[in-house]
Amino acid sequence: MARIYNFSAGPAVLPEEVLKEAAEEMLDFRNTGMSVMEMSHRSKAFEEIIGEAEKTLRDLMHIPDNYKVLFLQGGASQQFAMIPMNLMKNRAADHINTGQWAKKAIAEGKIYGRINVIASSEDKTFSYIPDLKNLKISDDADYVYICHNNTIYGTKFNDLPETCGKTLVADMSSDILSEPVDVTKYGIIFAGAQKNIGPAGVVVVIIREDLITDDVLPGTPTMLKYKTHADNKSLYNTPPAYGIYICGKVFQWVQRLGGLEAMKKRNEEKAAVLYDYLDSSKLFKGTVAKKDRSLMNVPFVTGSEELDAKFVKESKAAGFENLKGHRTVGGMRASIYNAMPIEGVQRLVDFMKKFEEENQ
Amino acid sequence: MARIYNFSAGPAVLPEEVLKEAAEEMLDFRNTGMSVMEMSHRSKAFEEIIGEAEKTLRDLMHIPDNYKVLFLQGGASQQFAMIPMNLMKNRAADHINTGQWAKKAIAEGKIYGRINVIASSEDKTFSYIPDLKNLKISDDADYVYICHNNTIYGTKFNDLPETCGKTLVADMSSDILSEPVDVTKYGIIFAGAQKNIGPAGVVVVIIREDLITDDVLPGTPTMLKYKTHADNKSLYNTPPAYGIYICGKVFQWVQRLGGLEAMKKRNEEKAAVLYDYLDSSKLFKGTVAKKDRSLMNVPFVTGSEELDAKFVKESKAAGFENLKGHRTVGGMRASIYNAMPIEGVQRLVDFMKKFEEENQ
Repeated sequence: MARIYNFSAGPAVLPEEVLKEAAEEMLDFRNTGMSVMEMSHRSKAFEEIIGEAEKTLRDLMHIPDNYKVLFLQGGASQQFAMIPMNLMKNRAADHINTGQWAKKAIAEGKIYGRINVIASSEDKTFSYIPDLKNLKISDDADYVYICHNNTIYGTKFNDLPETCGKTLVADMSSDILSEPVDVTKYGIIFAGAQKNIGPAGVVVVIIREDLITDDVLPGTPTMLKYKTHADNKSLYNTPPAYGIYICGKVFQWVQRLGGLEAMKKRNEEKAAVLYDYLDSSKLFKGTVAKKDRSLMNVPFVTGSEELDAKFVKESKAAGFENLKGHRTVGGMRASIYNAMPIEGVQRLVDFMKKFEEENQ
Repeated sequence: MARIYNFSAGPAVLPEEVLKEAAEEMLDFRNTGMSVMEMSHRSKAFEEIIGEAEKTLRDLMHIPDNYKVLFLQGGASQQFAMIPMNLMKNRAADHINTGQWAKKAIAEGKIYGRINVIASSEDKTFSYIPDLKNLKISDDADYVYICHNNTIYGTKFNDLPETCGKTLVADMSSDILSEPVDVTKYGIIFAGAQKNIGPAGVVVVIIREDLITDDVLPGTPTMLKYKTHADNKSLYNTPPAYGIYICGKVFQWVQRLGGLEAMKKRNEEKAAVLYDYLDSSKLFKGTVAKKDRSLMNVPFVTGSEELDAKFVKESKAAGFENLKGHRTVGGMRASIYNAMPIEGVQRLVDFMKKFEEENQ
C-alpha cells in the first residue's frame, strides 16, 4: 500500500526520508555490523549518536550553554511529577489551565504542593488562551507552568505570561521545533517526542542549570531527579537508544530544511491552506479564537454530529487517517505537524471542498 | 559490512530475522500506509500489536490469569523505586546482595524503608550465589528481593530462597526467556528489554494482581503506580510503542524456535561450548563457582591483565565485539543471550584456542 496522509495527534507522521534511512541502517549502522538497537549505550558509536542529536537540537533552538538537554523516559506524564519533585521548594506553583494536559499537570502537582490556577479557559471548552495581562503571580510560587500548544483544543500561546521573575515551565510536546523559541525565557521546556521529534518513548527536557540540584522533595526516586541524568549526560542507565537515534535524524531533517525560521514559514503556509478554507467555508468552521490558533492542531466542526461522522468515515476511505476529533471537542481535528507535507493539507482541503459541495 | 558477533551485555544482539522484518515494515506496517512509529497508540493496529505481544509472552511463560503484564518505561532502575513505593506497607524489605544491580536496588529501597541484606556474596567479588538455606527472613518484610541473573558477574540463581510466605520480587533483566520459569513463585518479575527481549526503553513487569493497589507510599507519582498502568493496559499515556512492537516480534521468534524449553536446551548447549573450553584451557578460566554459572553472561580471565588486554584487542579486530569485562571484574565477558547464534560461540572458542596456542 502507498503511504497515507496521517493526521494523528501523536504518535504522528515522521519524515519519510528519516524512515527510509532507518530502514536502510536497520541491520548495519554505518559499518558497525549491528543495528542501533543492539548497540551498547556506552559504545563510541552510540555516544556519537546521542552527542550529534544534542548538538543539532542545540543549534536549531539556539540553546544557551547554561541549559542542559536531557533525553529521558516516561513522557510528559512523568514530567508532571518530576517538575514539582525537583522544583518545589515552597511547595507552591502557579498554573494556567488551557486544557486536558494542563489539567493533568495541575492534578499531579497537587500531590506535592499548593497549585494556584491563575488563569483558565475552561469556561469555553478551552477554545482560547486566557488573557495574560495582570496575572496574579503568587509570591511563594516556585514556578509558573503553561502548556504551550494544546493538542486537543488547537490553541497556542503566542505571548508568554509575565511571571514577575518566577521560573517559567512549558510543556511544548505538540509544538517544539515548529517555530523559533527564545529558550532564555524558560526555566524548563519539555516535549514528548511523539509529535514533532520522533517516536514515543523519549521525552526531551531543556533545563536551566540552576534548577538542577540535589535539593529535591523527600522520597524522589533517583530516576526522577534531573541531576541524576544531567550528571550522566542522559546515560545514568540505558536510555531509549533507538528513539534518540530517530530523534537525531529528525533534528537533522529540520536543519536541512533550513532550521526553525524556515519551519515556521512552512508551517504558517501549511496551516493557512486549512484555516483560509475554514474561514471561507459555509459547512466547516474552526473551533478556536483566531488569535490563539495553533499551527499544529486544527480542530473543526460542521455543526452537525451526523455530518461530522460522515466526514470522518469518508475521509478515512479516501486515505486521510485520524481526522476524528477528541471526544471532549467532538468534530474533526487535523494535526499537521512538521512532517506533514503541504500536499497532504492541500489534498485534505480539496476533499473537504468536494464534501461541502456534496453535502450542501 | 557483514553483521559481526556482538557479545554486548546489553543493549545486545537481536535476532536477525526480527531486524529484517522491522526494516521491511518501516514505511508501511501491514498495509496501514504508515510506520509503527507513526501510529496512534489508540489505533486498532497498535492495540493488536500490544495485545499480540502480551499474549505471546503469556503463552511462552505460562503466565497465570491472576498476573498482569505491563510494558513500562524507565528500565530496571525505575523499578528499583516503583517496587518499594508500591509494595512497602511496613517500610521493610529483605534483599540478597549478588552484585551491582542488586546493590542499586538496595540503595534505592533505602530511600523508602529499612532494607535488610539477608545474604551476600560480596566477599568474593560476587562470584557465587550465597547459600539460600536458613535465611533469616524478617517478620515485617514486605517482600524478598533477588537479582536472578547477574550480568556483570555471570552468576544465576538456580534455586530460589525460601521466603516464609513473603512475596518474592525478581529482577530478570538478563535472563528472562532464557529458560522456563514458574511464575507462581514470584510476586513480581521484571526485566529491562535490552538483553533478551528487544530494544532499550521498555521494561516488562509481570505482577500478581493482589500487589496492584492504591495503597502506595505518599508522594508516589501517578506514573510510578502499578495500578495506573494495570488499569489502562499499559496505555495510560503513550507507551514506547515501537519498542513494544519489536518485543512482540522477539517473543514470536522465541515461540517459533519452540518456546522456553527449546530455548533452555539451546542455551545450555551454547554455554557448554564456552564453559567446556574454559574448564579445559590452560590459559583462560571462568571466574564463577560452577554451580552458579549463568547461561547468559560468561566472564573469564587469563590471569594476566596484559594478556587480557591483548585478547580484547585482537578479538575485536577479528570481528568479536564487546568482549571486554566489566571494570569491577576485569578480564573478559561474553554475553551470549538468546539471539546469539551457537556459531558465534563456536567461532569465539576457535579464536580463543588459537590465541591460547599463540600465547603459551
